[in-house]
Amino acid sequence: MTQNIDDLCINTIRTLSMDAVQKANSGHPGTPMALAPVAYTVWQRFLRFDPQQPIWANRDRFVLSNGHASMLLYSLLHLAGVKQVDEKYDVTGEPAVSLEEIERFRQLGSRTPGHPEYRHTTGVETTTGPLGQGIATSVGMAIAARWKSTYFNRPGFDIFDYDVYAICGDGCLMEGIGSEAASLAGHLELSNLCWLWDNNHITIEGRTDLAFTEDVAARFRAYGWNVLHVPDANDTGAVARALELFREEKGRPTFIVVDSHIAYGAPNKQDTKEAHGEPLGEDEIRLAKQNYGGPVDAKFLVPDGVRARFDEQVGARGREQRVAWEAKFRDYGKQYPDLAEQVELIDRRGLPKGWDSGLPSFPADAKGIAGRDASAKVLNALAKNVPWLLGGSADLAPSTKTRLTFDGSRDFEPDDHGGRNFHFGVREHVMGAVINGMALSKLRPYGSGFLIFSDYARGSIRLSALMEIPVIHIFTHDSISLGEDGPTHQPIEQLAMLRATPNVVVLRPADGTETAEAWRVALGRQDGPSVLVLTRQKLPVFDRAAQGLGAADGVRRGAYVLREPATAPEALLLATGSEVHVALAAADLLAQDGIAARVVSMPSWELFARQPEAYRDAVLPPSVGARVAIEAAAPFGWHRWVGERGTVLAMESFGASAPAERLYQEFGLTPARAADAVRHLLARSPA
Amino acid sequence: MTQNIDDLCINTIRTLSMDAVQKANSGHPGTPMALAPVAYTVWQRFLRFDPQQPIWANRDRFVLSNGHASMLLYSLLHLAGVKQVDEKYDVTGEPAVSLEEIERFRQLGSRTPGHPEYRHTTGVETTTGPLGQGIATSVGMAIAARWKSTYFNRPGFDIFDYDVYAICGDGCLMEGIGSEAASLAGHLELSNLCWLWDNNHITIEGRTDLAFTEDVAARFRAYGWNVLHVPDANDTGAVARALELFREEKGRPTFIVVDSHIAYGAPNKQDTKEAHGEPLGEDEIRLAKQNYGGPVDAKFLVPDGVRARFDEQVGARGREQRVAWEAKFRDYGKQYPDLAEQVELIDRRGLPKGWDSGLPSFPADAKGIAGRDASAKVLNALAKNVPWLLGGSADLAPSTKTRLTFDGSRDFEPDDHGGRNFHFGVREHVMGAVINGMALSKLRPYGSGFLIFSDYARGSIRLSALMEIPVIHIFTHDSISLGEDGPTHQPIEQLAMLRATPNVVVLRPADGTETAEAWRVALGRQDGPSVLVLTRQKLPVFDRAAQGLGAADGVRRGAYVLREPATAPEALLLATGSEVHVALAAADLLAQDGIAARVVSMPSWELFARQPEAYRDAVLPPSVGARVAIEAAAPFGWHRWVGERGTVLAMESFGASAPAERLYQEFGLTPARAADAVRHLLARSPA
Repeated sequence: MTQNIDDLCINTIRTLSMDAVQKANSGHPGTPMALAPVAYTVWQRFLRFDPQQPIWANRDRFVLSNGHASMLLYSLLHLAGVKQVDEKYDVTGEPAVSLEEIERFRQLGSRTPGHPEYRHTTGVETTTGPLGQGIATSVGMAIAARWKSTYFNRPGFDIFDYDVYAICGDGCLMEGIGSEAASLAGHLELSNLCWLWDNNHITIEGRTDLAFTEDVAARFRAYGWNVLHVPDANDTGAVARALELFREEKGRPTFIVVDSHIAYGAPNKQDTKEAHGEPLGEDEIRLAKQNYGGPVDAKFLVPDGVRARFDEQVGARGREQRVAWEAKFRDYGKQYPDLAEQVELIDRRGLPKGWDSGLPSFPADAKGIAGRDASAKVLNALAKNVPWLLGGSADLAPSTKTRLTFDGSRDFEPDDHGGRNFHFGVREHVMGAVINGMALSKLRPYGSGFLIFSDYARGSIRLSALMEIPVIHIFTHDSISLGEDGPTHQPIEQLAMLRATPNVVVLRPADGTETAEAWRVALGRQDGPSVLVLTRQKLPVFDRAAQGLGAADGVRRGAYVLREPATAPEALLLATGSEVHVALAAADLLAQDGIAARVVSMPSWELFARQPEAYRDAVLPPSVGARVAIEAAAPFGWHRWVGERGTVLAMESFGASAPAERLYQEFGLTPARAADAVRHLLARSPA
Repeated sequence: MTQNIDDLCINTIRTLSMDAVQKANSGHPGTPMALAPVAYTVWQRFLRFDPQQPIWANRDRFVLSNGHASMLLYSLLHLAGVKQVDEKYDVTGEPAVSLEEIERFRQLGSRTPGHPEYRHTTGVETTTGPLGQGIATSVGMAIAARWKSTYFNRPGFDIFDYDVYAICGDGCLMEGIGSEAASLAGHLELSNLCWLWDNNHITIEGRTDLAFTEDVAARFRAYGWNVLHVPDANDTGAVARALELFREEKGRPTFIVVDSHIAYGAPNKQDTKEAHGEPLGEDEIRLAKQNYGGPVDAKFLVPDGVRARFDEQVGARGREQRVAWEAKFRDYGKQYPDLAEQVELIDRRGLPKGWDSGLPSFPADAKGIAGRDASAKVLNALAKNVPWLLGGSADLAPSTKTRLTFDGSRDFEPDDHGGRNFHFGVREHVMGAVINGMALSKLRPYGSGFLIFSDYARGSIRLSALMEIPVIHIFTHDSISLGEDGPTHQPIEQLAMLRATPNVVVLRPADGTETAEAWRVALGRQDGPSVLVLTRQKLPVFDRAAQGLGAADGVRRGAYVLREPATAPEALLLATGSEVHVALAAADLLAQDGIAARVVSMPSWELFARQPEAYRDAVLPPSVGARVAIEAAAPFGWHRWVGERGTVLAMESFGASAPAERLYQEFGLTPARAADAVRHLLARSPA
């Protein structure tokens, strides 16, 4: 039985996937087998992607939202001969995914981990696995593409016109984040976005109709999408016709329902839930290979002609498109040198020279300024310097103060994809994913909300940390100090949650001056998310010069000595954000008793933990055991800094609905109580 | 101008709301003003609710999902004369919400906090504020109602036939959890559930069409809901007709689109975003009162006849219905004494006698049993004893092993609302809210998933803690030990996130025997959520007798001495769950060197922290500073237990995709490294 070359390619994806899962004795074979013809058609006939230059700026993006089907993607990366890119964004000679790496599927240090990981494997545009995140992130990518085209394109120079494809499964569509994403993408009329739904009727527990009987196509029409149907995933002609219609559609995102059979071709496992997440077994693999018309015993076989077929389709087309683009871009650079420079700067995740110049300064002021208001001034100054700093809020911009308000600022809207102010709606989770997608497209995005609602965006925030991408979260209303809205809105454990997450930098500045420094750290960061934690209420701006306080650039080191007593410190008062001025007042009270207390401002535990031991010991001398920490949040984690003899004044319970000052009294976050705690510790200390 | 009595009542709700927000100088006046006629119609003409017995078991439930409109609910509770219920579930003579309490809106200790809080104010059926949670929780309430009716009703005895009403705003429908909830409710054909959508076209940032232009009604039809439309919120006749159609509908939940005007009647603020979350101002309030036809200067006025009108409608109807029900229930109790006893037991949050009898024991076994498998055995034993222990999984039951499998166990399905196994679909967030709703209905629900996906359910888990309701989360695949699925699936910071949340009890048992004890704690708990954190992989079952180990009922105290060395301990090895056997092996290694190390199993930090200081000091003697903790999770929080000189062997980064044993080596979570850490500490200790 002779197969045509395309069938041979498709079946090679299937057999590589089966073999890799079997050898690893772990993984998800069924979906790659079902979707091979679909992904193959996208890649071979549509995707603008040059395997030799896999991070070419105007490439189409391909997202595998059902990340458990990772072998589908790894097979494509291998067969297309995608080259690896190093950390400096240079292409190396190495393949991104060699056949050996496929044989090392799911082994330590391989390029083929269980789920696709951005940065780890070239060609993986975003990390997927937690369901719904891929499609949600694809919305951010499509937004970034549209923004870049609006900002950079000039008559005769369509520098950016790329599309975003995402493949997803039932799980992605059941997850709330997927619904948020679909609603937002429909609203924004992102016609460069195409989702292909693997409608296989199977989930882990059994048939999807156990839990999922809605009319998905009707739901997407309600969101304003162009909805198409391919009744057979193996009908590559039908897949291609649907994708043509996607490319012709100019006003709406496209949703293609693809009816498929999980583990297609495996005679005993097809259409079963067992094919989702278990190896098929050697016997079943042989039977499937027989069905595909290939040799039944060969493993990890790439038949002659397969790689060539990829090279002559996606390879040749991508090469030609990329070379033509480069020529066009050279001409563009002659006419628009500034813009071309920006394109290149973005691509290296660079910032313009002087990006942090002209930041506002905050004169000493006992009455002060709220963290959110100080942040608004700094953000607007930075955004003037960095045209691709952009973002918005989940319907809280008037409260988070994250709107860009300078001349020329405008909204990103369905009919204007060049605006920089985003209305994400009451959709925190997709906001997190959208800014991830924008950051993966190398823009510098921010999202904002109340700190309590970081809960709703947890999944996306974690992925930004895992992917090491520099998104910025601006979370205001950062403690019980938001007052009357009460415990449903008062964050308690959210700081701990964020601080415990690897690679997140949390910054909780104490005054306007620290806020500016915190923004410098956040925007200067290239390799992970930053979280700015800001107050709703006014905070004094410290008179650092007059009071002999430490300079605010100590923020960069995470913690610093804010006030040193006249004599050697007997005690340390540690605080962050809105509790730093409480600590200063406590030190004043103690000074009246002749007790020398140092005040340490600790806006970022993570940055402090990375400092050399000598610095850390200089700020928190091991010899000073009398330590009191004050923070209007859960005490969880503070013992690292106060030690076993120290005291943590914090929130041991949820908050309450009342005016903020009343709450600080009620929960004992006061200078008097902090001073008492120090006195108590000193009295208990061994003589 | 004379108003009819119903208009007078409706306008009283409006004026109380305006006045309360104005006096508090904080709050959300616009929505109560818009929705007063809608909520009034539900309460006065439909709600089966007796203000004198506000926790009558067969009452209809009313949920205000847009919780910021709390004054709407407080006004109803006040005007209807709802009585307060104490902690023993006894009705007191006191009003739930007096007029004085309305005047104390948003003040410390008032019954009228910024957002409605369950337990705090009688008549508040669930805490709302974080958007989407109320409607999602209402699905759980509707499920509970249907389950109770299927389980308890007998021919001629419709003991349970109540309905669930929820009012929601745009935000609830934009949030992903709202979509998950709607999809699930449609699937389950919960015809006893009615949502009323306040379609006011306004959000905080401005008009909803800034971010939300989907066809919501079409979306709900796609979910399988009965969708109705009321073009004018003030047309109480139209509202009533829609509610009649809801009551006639037997196959689908009902979604009523109510077009409304935020701040209806305020001439300058109506239909503006400012009316959402700011007091209207004294002048505007006067103008609105003029429009309503009332005196413009009176504050907190309840005109004559208003309370009487509530009493003759909802009051009289509810009283009659409740009295009739009680008579019926007495007869039911004669015919079905066992069932009646169960109804009463459930209502007091009790458990049947012998609820924890017949639990499996786990014989010592070096090869052992996985946490999830041990849990499955215990859960099934408990569920046989407790008929209202029920739950399921977010499409992971085959992996979390949470299915009830004994004879007679069946699924909760659209055509069988008596099953106890739930298929929540890939919808973790609504699973969390649904079990909240079931627990608020006093059933004993559990939900299950992988620990990593606790991220997706954060919002609902937090609310269960805030509401102090005894839901049980079963989270398996609890560390890097899940292996090949890699870092997207390996929890790191989730334990810290859960432990940092007030009122959550996290239990991470070390072997099968501890797992049984952990379940005892979880099901025995009445006042807050428990989280069982379980392994995917096998764990040895300790031979406690032969090895002289501490008894597993130490789990109840959170931490206990598992193994005591022959001589006084020089060092402490602390561990939880799957790392406890690592600690035991480390102690063996140290014993070979003549180092006496105590092993402490710490399955629950929260329970341990509540023990008397004497017990805590006995388990962790302050004199022993050489402490090493081992846990395959973020180290965050451990310094509380190891002190400043201690060492934490934990995950300082995300995990990786590889077989589990390889990962434990790679990340150094081994007996050898733990023993080394102890040796290092002892060498450094002062002589």
